[in-house]
Amino acid sequence: MENDVIANLKSLGIDMISKAESGHPGIVLSSASIIYTVYANHMHININDSYYINRDRFVMSAGHGSALLYATLFMCGFLTLDDLKKFRTIDSKTPGHPEYKVTPGVDASTGPLGQGIGMAVGMAIAEKHLQTLTDNLVDYNIYALCGDGDLMEGISYEAASLAGTLKLNNLIILYDSNRISLDGKINHTFTEDVLTRFEALGWQVFSATNKVSEIDKAIKKAKKSDMPVLIEVKTILGDGSLLENTNTVHGKPLTKEDIKQLKQKLNVPLEEFYVNEKAVNYFKEKIVKRSMEKYLNWQKLYNDYNISKPDGYLTKFLNKDINTSFNDITIDIPKEMATRDSNQTVMNYFSEKNLLLFGGSADLASSTKVYLNNEGDFSSNTYQGRNIWYGVREHAMGSISNGLALSGFLPFCSTFLVFSDYLKPAIRMSALMDLPVTYIFTHDSINVGEDGPTHEPIEELSMLRSIPNFTVYRPADFNEVVGSWQSILSLKKPSALILSRAKTYNLEVTKRESVKCGAYIVRKESQKLSAILVATGTEVNTAFKIAEDLMEAGYDLRVVSMPSVELFKKQPKTYKYEILPAGIKTFFIEASSSFGLRDFVSNEKYLITLNEFGASGKSEDVLKKFHFDYDSIKNKIKELL
Amino acid sequence: MENDVIANLKSLGIDMISKAESGHPGIVLSSASIIYTVYANHMHININDSYYINRDRFVMSAGHGSALLYATLFMCGFLTLDDLKKFRTIDSKTPGHPEYKVTPGVDASTGPLGQGIGMAVGMAIAEKHLQTLTDNLVDYNIYALCGDGDLMEGISYEAASLAGTLKLNNLIILYDSNRISLDGKINHTFTEDVLTRFEALGWQVFSATNKVSEIDKAIKKAKKSDMPVLIEVKTILGDGSLLENTNTVHGKPLTKEDIKQLKQKLNVPLEEFYVNEKAVNYFKEKIVKRSMEKYLNWQKLYNDYNISKPDGYLTKFLNKDINTSFNDITIDIPKEMATRDSNQTVMNYFSEKNLLLFGGSADLASSTKVYLNNEGDFSSNTYQGRNIWYGVREHAMGSISNGLALSGFLPFCSTFLVFSDYLKPAIRMSALMDLPVTYIFTHDSINVGEDGPTHEPIEELSMLRSIPNFTVYRPADFNEVVGSWQSILSLKKPSALILSRAKTYNLEVTKRESVKCGAYIVRKESQKLSAILVATGTEVNTAFKIAEDLMEAGYDLRVVSMPSVELFKKQPKTYKYEILPAGIKTFFIEASSSFGLRDFVSNEKYLITLNEFGASGKSEDVLKKFHFDYDSIKNKIKELL
Repeated sequence: MENDVIANLKSLGIDMISKAESGHPGIVLSSASIIYTVYANHMHININDSYYINRDRFVMSAGHGSALLYATLFMCGFLTLDDLKKFRTIDSKTPGHPEYKVTPGVDASTGPLGQGIGMAVGMAIAEKHLQTLTDNLVDYNIYALCGDGDLMEGISYEAASLAGTLKLNNLIILYDSNRISLDGKINHTFTEDVLTRFEALGWQVFSATNKVSEIDKAIKKAKKSDMPVLIEVKTILGDGSLLENTNTVHGKPLTKEDIKQLKQKLNVPLEEFYVNEKAVNYFKEKIVKRSMEKYLNWQKLYNDYNISKPDGYLTKFLNKDINTSFNDITIDIPKEMATRDSNQTVMNYFSEKNLLLFGGSADLASSTKVYLNNEGDFSSNTYQGRNIWYGVREHAMGSISNGLALSGFLPFCSTFLVFSDYLKPAIRMSALMDLPVTYIFTHDSINVGEDGPTHEPIEELSMLRSIPNFTVYRPADFNEVVGSWQSILSLKKPSALILSRAKTYNLEVTKRESVKCGAYIVRKESQKLSAILVATGTEVNTAFKIAEDLMEAGYDLRVVSMPSVELFKKQPKTYKYEILPAGIKTFFIEASSSFGLRDFVSNEKYLITLNEFGASGKSEDVLKKFHFDYDSIKNKIKELL
Repeated sequence: MENDVIANLKSLGIDMISKAESGHPGIVLSSASIIYTVYANHMHININDSYYINRDRFVMSAGHGSALLYATLFMCGFLTLDDLKKFRTIDSKTPGHPEYKVTPGVDASTGPLGQGIGMAVGMAIAEKHLQTLTDNLVDYNIYALCGDGDLMEGISYEAASLAGTLKLNNLIILYDSNRISLDGKINHTFTEDVLTRFEALGWQVFSATNKVSEIDKAIKKAKKSDMPVLIEVKTILGDGSLLENTNTVHGKPLTKEDIKQLKQKLNVPLEEFYVNEKAVNYFKEKIVKRSMEKYLNWQKLYNDYNISKPDGYLTKFLNKDINTSFNDITIDIPKEMATRDSNQTVMNYFSEKNLLLFGGSADLASSTKVYLNNEGDFSSNTYQGRNIWYGVREHAMGSISNGLALSGFLPFCSTFLVFSDYLKPAIRMSALMDLPVTYIFTHDSINVGEDGPTHEPIEELSMLRSIPNFTVYRPADFNEVVGSWQSILSLKKPSALILSRAKTYNLEVTKRESVKCGAYIVRKESQKLSAILVATGTEVNTAFKIAEDLMEAGYDLRVVSMPSVELFKKQPKTYKYEILPAGIKTFFIEASSSFGLRDFVSNEKYLITLNEFGASGKSEDVLKKFHFDYDSIKNKIKELL
């Protein structure tokens, strides 16, 4: 019967692609046995409670295998046959690549290669943390299916190397090894010994032919491993197609003739979208029987837990317990401090009350100061620690953070702003999936000085602000750091927090509660408004001082702090007009590219920004070189007033 | 005497950092013997002809080791003692991280970890290609020094995996293995077996203690290898400092006390910037003797070559022979074609005459259509091919392209526009070093349709346009593709070429020679100008048709094609005003984020753009969903006219 299920998975997948006139038949035919074995014999899920915490996770890292995944989810009962017929059509539950929150049973959006592996590692870290903190009440596995392409991507190496270091034995990756990629046979591009590489990374590896019994045996062994496991399944791309074992079968629908002969080979009726009810029932029963037992048992255990520990970790976790009322933060704030230091104080203040916060740094915690002092390190010895040491792996850090968020956490991660470049693909995935990941980027301007242009961000703020559904915060001082976090924790949306290494004054005029409006007045004109200085981050100090200084010269300036351009743009027109009335000469001061800031000024000459790469030198010399020191900025403004 | 040189390299490096009050002593002390061995015993260079083609290359991939590199370059004769004293000060020849074109003897800018490895692999590919095409006249090695951080980065894995596949035995990477990274000991983060991993990638590996004799022996063996080689040198971070073997010594100047005891240990006088002339002479002589012989011999060989092959490949290569006169391209252009197809035709037309063009695709040549049909594949069997198969390794592709450009080529590389995210750090390095790399990004809008939001670029054009010293071209049709390439090949600057998968009409009104102005009029108003429609890429067609359609309704519209925003911004005011006169209602139509386009319109409502992620569905349905189909755009414009 299992062969009937697999044949039907294949025929459904092929029919979907044929009807959509678009899709990837190759992987449907190569990986059907793999996904069958995982779901039929191992996955614990519940179609009536699709996101229950203790379910096993499945990540289709080779996201172009969506048709196969949807066919499987149809057989599980998550999708209808009608959903399958709408494959790759607008507003369907079956988009071209798997999308989180669009399709029930899909645990992560995938498509950009390598991201799935990173997210799976994040999910594995999440599970280990939850398991430890709930005395093994939480206990699930993470399965991922990947292809050669995924394994060529650097991000998958980064994530796998960390997974090995952390001994994440709840992670099982099934590798559809067919030696073909989009452009052709991979002997041109990928001759490495993948299994030995993974062994070197601290993984256990198994090899199997494309038979259920062999795959199953390998998964059973994998579940007992004390390391993460890679199972190489030697497959044939487009198995059974007339084009099998060629790259042509990767991404184009099969011809009618090919489908016909394939279905004959598979012993499936030629009828389009034929469903073998018997086979489906057999498959469903296997899943339900195993899954339901665990599900009911888990509900019971969780009820007992709830009774014995009404205030237990898991209850808080499941209630998404978030505490944003830390306005009482009462430390003695020094007059002058870098916003990275403010952030260190603030995060350490509220992290104890916010157990969902979980994250770390890409080997720059000493510099970004992003570290929870009392929360311990997450390591292979102690999965309860809340500080993750990512190593110099920015990209994987982003992707793992997505995996943590998909598992219910509020992840944070940190590196220098200039290295946000390394994470861009993962940030985009956070924004696409609408995940509450907070990216903390410090060393936010050319005033890092000595390290020079490779370490001095110029265009990175523009890059981050241009991402849809993403909010960037660049707080001016301690108060605004508090306000930024209050906004971040309330909104629970993908965000970046941009912080300085340079010291800056903690202004009395900044307001925590105004950060959520994106911009507000920190210095009001006293009588007749001469002009407005808008600034962000450490430049708010500069603008404020300039306004005070130019008062004597007879200028009556308003200063607006704009910690978040995106939040300000979302305000009602009346508010925006109140803060930035039309017809008033308005300057924008920011140690960053002017790209995207033209909205706020009437002429580009009022943009006091930086549009070339920086230089190495003492901070003050670098600022002077680019006319971004205090005097240069003041004089420029004075000239233009 | 060699110990004296090494001791002096160390003391100079430490003094530089001390005077600059900034820098990284750890690697100076761990890697001095390594860099000594490479330069004293192996490198072929000529300080009087620092960029001569047949020199060996040295890439300080661990760019924070700049002080050590500069001390070495001082001893070689590239720098003066005064240069060393100006370490990390503004406009010096000794910036915080090595910068190409700033410091003689520096072969690549480095700092962002992993990039150096990628560039070194690019240099190795370049050398293999040159060597093959010059019958071994060109013949040099590439050395790189890296640390644990470099090897944790995904990009270095990607590049190394490709180097193994390509059997680049001219590449020798020296790995300063000290088991410490910025945040602490790497047992938290990096427990993998690095040597076994590299063996699995097809590298030969050697291990050495931190002794010149051992390192030297390993390099000698490496030079005879038929694979790329990784030499692990077991070192102690900050060797000899009171803080040795801790992360504190990584990035902070040593204390006075520490310097004192260190110099005593090293048997170096306490005097700041002490130079052991004898040692320096010994070192210099070793280099000069070996290098000069090869240099003179090479000059002779090259002269002979020139005489026997006056039109030989190498002569053309060294003359940077570029042919931009392909305006005669006379193929029968179909009425309608995707700009990716136009590009395929154009590149194949001029590639024969432009031997410096060298590049490939990240496993998407079949889709980007970036492939030189008559130029063969670059593979371990045939290094003369000009098509590089990068595999699914976008980031390494970018970095390798930088290495090719540093070696004298005009590299191109390609993937989908949405995956430009994966390359951002490498693109930034191209821009920083001002390298003539052309990034070709196809599938440039949501009309890719079925593949869905993970494959549909929205903010990527903004990201690329925001990079300083980077020019983005988005041609409207065949003519503008020709014009884009003429501009790219004339300017020889870092650029991106953005192309469509969707078919678009080849307009008679587009002009090849106007691309270099960034924008120009493709349809002039007939009498009284009602409004201007600015568009880029495939949207120029849309704008043109709308203008024609709305003529009947009494609107007299101008249409401006803007293939390059950056080039247009650089035009004189008069030209800009001629194309886009002030006070005229101006629309900007682009299937991309509006971020950064506000400069061209008087009110954001005139931006007809896309500011949310796309969706999966048939192209026409996706366009409709986001009101970017022809009728929606036309109606919106009509309403606002």
